[in-house]
Amino acid sequence: MSKRELHLGAILSGVGTTQNAWLDPDLPGDASVSIDWYIENARLAEAAKFDLVFIVDSPFITPDTAPHFLNRLEPLTLLSAVAVSTSRIGLAGTLTTSFWEPYNVARQFASLDLISKGRAAWNVVTTGLEGAARNYGREEHFDHALRYARAKEFVAVVQGLWDSYEDDAFPRDKAAGVFLDKTKQHVLNHKGEFFTVAGPLNIQRSPQGQPVIFQAGDSDAGRDLGAHIAEGTYTIAENFEDARAYYQDLKQRAAALGRNPDHIVVLPGLIPVLADTDEEARAIEEQENGKLDFTKALVQLGRPFNYHDFTQYDPDAAFPDVGHITLNSYKGHAEKIVRAARAENLTLRETAWRFATRRNPFVGTAETVANEIEHWFTNGACDGFNFRVTRPGDFARFIREVVPILQERGLFRTEYAHDTLRGHLGLPFPENRYAQPIHAIAAE
Amino acid sequence: MSKRELHLGAILSGVGTTQNAWLDPDLPGDASVSIDWYIENARLAEAAKFDLVFIVDSPFITPDTAPHFLNRLEPLTLLSAVAVSTSRIGLAGTLTTSFWEPYNVARQFASLDLISKGRAAWNVVTTGLEGAARNYGREEHFDHALRYARAKEFVAVVQGLWDSYEDDAFPRDKAAGVFLDKTKQHVLNHKGEFFTVAGPLNIQRSPQGQPVIFQAGDSDAGRDLGAHIAEGTYTIAENFEDARAYYQDLKQRAAALGRNPDHIVVLPGLIPVLADTDEEARAIEEQENGKLDFTKALVQLGRPFNYHDFTQYDPDAAFPDVGHITLNSYKGHAEKIVRAARAENLTLRETAWRFATRRNPFVGTAETVANEIEHWFTNGACDGFNFRVTRPGDFARFIREVVPILQERGLFRTEYAHDTLRGHLGLPFPENRYAQPIHAIAAE
Repeated sequence: MSKRELHLGAILSGVGTTQNAWLDPDLPGDASVSIDWYIENARLAEAAKFDLVFIVDSPFITPDTAPHFLNRLEPLTLLSAVAVSTSRIGLAGTLTTSFWEPYNVARQFASLDLISKGRAAWNVVTTGLEGAARNYGREEHFDHALRYARAKEFVAVVQGLWDSYEDDAFPRDKAAGVFLDKTKQHVLNHKGEFFTVAGPLNIQRSPQGQPVIFQAGDSDAGRDLGAHIAEGTYTIAENFEDARAYYQDLKQRAAALGRNPDHIVVLPGLIPVLADTDEEARAIEEQENGKLDFTKALVQLGRPFNYHDFTQYDPDAAFPDVGHITLNSYKGHAEKIVRAARAENLTLRETAWRFATRRNPFVGTAETVANEIEHWFTNGACDGFNFRVTRPGDFARFIREVVPILQERGLFRTEYAHDTLRGHLGLPFPENRYAQPIHAIAAE
Repeated sequence: MSKRELHLGAILSGVGTTQNAWLDPDLPGDASVSIDWYIENARLAEAAKFDLVFIVDSPFITPDTAPHFLNRLEPLTLLSAVAVSTSRIGLAGTLTTSFWEPYNVARQFASLDLISKGRAAWNVVTTGLEGAARNYGREEHFDHALRYARAKEFVAVVQGLWDSYEDDAFPRDKAAGVFLDKTKQHVLNHKGEFFTVAGPLNIQRSPQGQPVIFQAGDSDAGRDLGAHIAEGTYTIAENFEDARAYYQDLKQRAAALGRNPDHIVVLPGLIPVLADTDEEARAIEEQENGKLDFTKALVQLGRPFNYHDFTQYDPDAAFPDVGHITLNSYKGHAEKIVRAARAENLTLRETAWRFATRRNPFVGTAETVANEIEHWFTNGACDGFNFRVTRPGDFARFIREVVPILQERGLFRTEYAHDTLRGHLGLPFPENRYAQPIHAIAAE
């Protein structure tokens, strides 16, 4: 195996998934609905040789939802426009298995993979916000465990549809009059617990064979799904220890299922605060946190609890008993908050500040941040990072100052060595399930 | 009212929706999955000042399906890539109301409208092919009448979601800290016969207010739907008389509903055969028809009958009794075939040839074709045409030779006068249902 390589993603979220990010003077107020903003930032990331751009998503809002989620472009249409405006960078889009049809999802991602010439990835989520169900004809969201069982089958159906045609199914021989080799078109005929889908899909295999599968859930069910289906995961880690625990757990789960753990690329989120000195960077971080309004912090705290209204409690009493609140929402994240509040005897106010502000391990000079990145990467906490692009100045500075250090240390590429996202991430090309194993034969 | 203007669309269907179109030596065999081919042809159409490009669709195939449908890009991802590769031309995509969720459809078309800066249109279909149901967990397709009732409600829900935000809902005032004016976000709370959708949609109103609605069904239920919802229709007319009858009927239906008939733009399909003399053009047409294989003609005939197998009958006996075949498929088209076969006492062979080959009224020199176009346009048979781009040479020749004649006669624009598709088509900007009628006040 060649030298292990760090992977970098750029999460492009317009005006940002927090309450105040949109106030940055350098950030256009309409960034979340501006395809020009997305293309510009994707090109910046591509010039810096990032592996991919990453689009988060959720199909439910309230008036109090953070600015980016209130009003934003839809991931598939967004990424397709970015696809023809870039040439090498991967394109990962989030889409829920809870409120879509597998046939439509299979088609759109396969189409994106063809349009991008092999750079598409699907970030599989089940949707944490219960209110989303009411946008799709349901009174209540699927129970948490059911959501994940459905997701597993949903992905299997989509991957089955992606194999509808073998890689060489279309001779397109005008002289012989043969467009399709009918023996290489396959009908899936899936009849499962949740889905019944005949097929075949009406689109050929794409340059990647199949788009890459990402996954982002952090609950036990989420990790189990990730171990089964993910080729990449996006995770939110508070600190090195949490990241390492998640990393080891996920890779072990995958290995236990007979998978090669190297074939799941783990990318925690990264929001560095960069300055000329470590002290200055820490001061910026504290100032940013100080700007946050406590009411907004409470709203942000409530989101993983299905937008539970925490303003009804005494902020200076112990973190309230939320046993009556369903944890059917962003379960993994909500459980983490409850655990932390209980373990450290935090008040509601302390809990809100902790999770609205976060303890950011990536604060300091470019050298300091690069050191921390290397520490996580070389000590079993990640395979790279998903940079959350909110403050535009920080993204530019990270590219200008931190990326070169990572390159000098031989951790990160200085030029793309591949044309596809699978290539960038070191993931294998998935053989079509119906095909003769020609690669195996050739290798004998 | 200003002078009435001809409208031109370009139906881009890669290798073509007929059995043999892909054999054209000038057509790349992979055109249907090549975004480069689509972008190139959309740019040709834009340079010629066409109103729009148009993408047909259907979510079901068999091994015998015509080449384009076997393997093609998905319309929304395709059009989004074309959106950022063009600047003025409209972008119409087909999507079925039978197998999608209104919330997802509303999001994707609104997103396309933002990405294209006001050029999106949705061609509403209900899907004619019964087998499609089996790709979406259903044993049988919805009954024809039910399909159309669902479509009407589906479109109403989507349009309701498109009004979730008033046009000025986002002040994005950084100094005042106001991103959203909460009084201008609206919850739809739709509870209908087929759909229950809460809203609000998580995307702002687009430059067109709402994307344009096209519709293409030709049965009685299809025309009724068109009269209710369509701002444009795509129709397939055999001849001037049929086109005129459809045109008058649709406009009368719309007027009877209290709509302005000018706000439905009727565009029949157009596949001209151009040559230096009329005789030469007719010879090309006959030669093309002669190349068609009879078996392929039978398959093509079977498609509107839900891929009924017509090879089981004696081709030289009278057109068979198809009373036992469900007409739940492309009902309008199937009924037209049966009517013609009965009225003229055609054999199966004659019927197959008639409908595989069609009697094309647009065959001749550029002058002849321009004359026929003008005849249809000025005598109440259409508001323009949807050019079906199959033979690449013919599309280039139409632009080079016919469009200038139409421009010289003052029928077609020589430059775009608008930035949006609504502008090109002369359609009004839809006021948000929740907004104060400021335009009305300003006009007083």
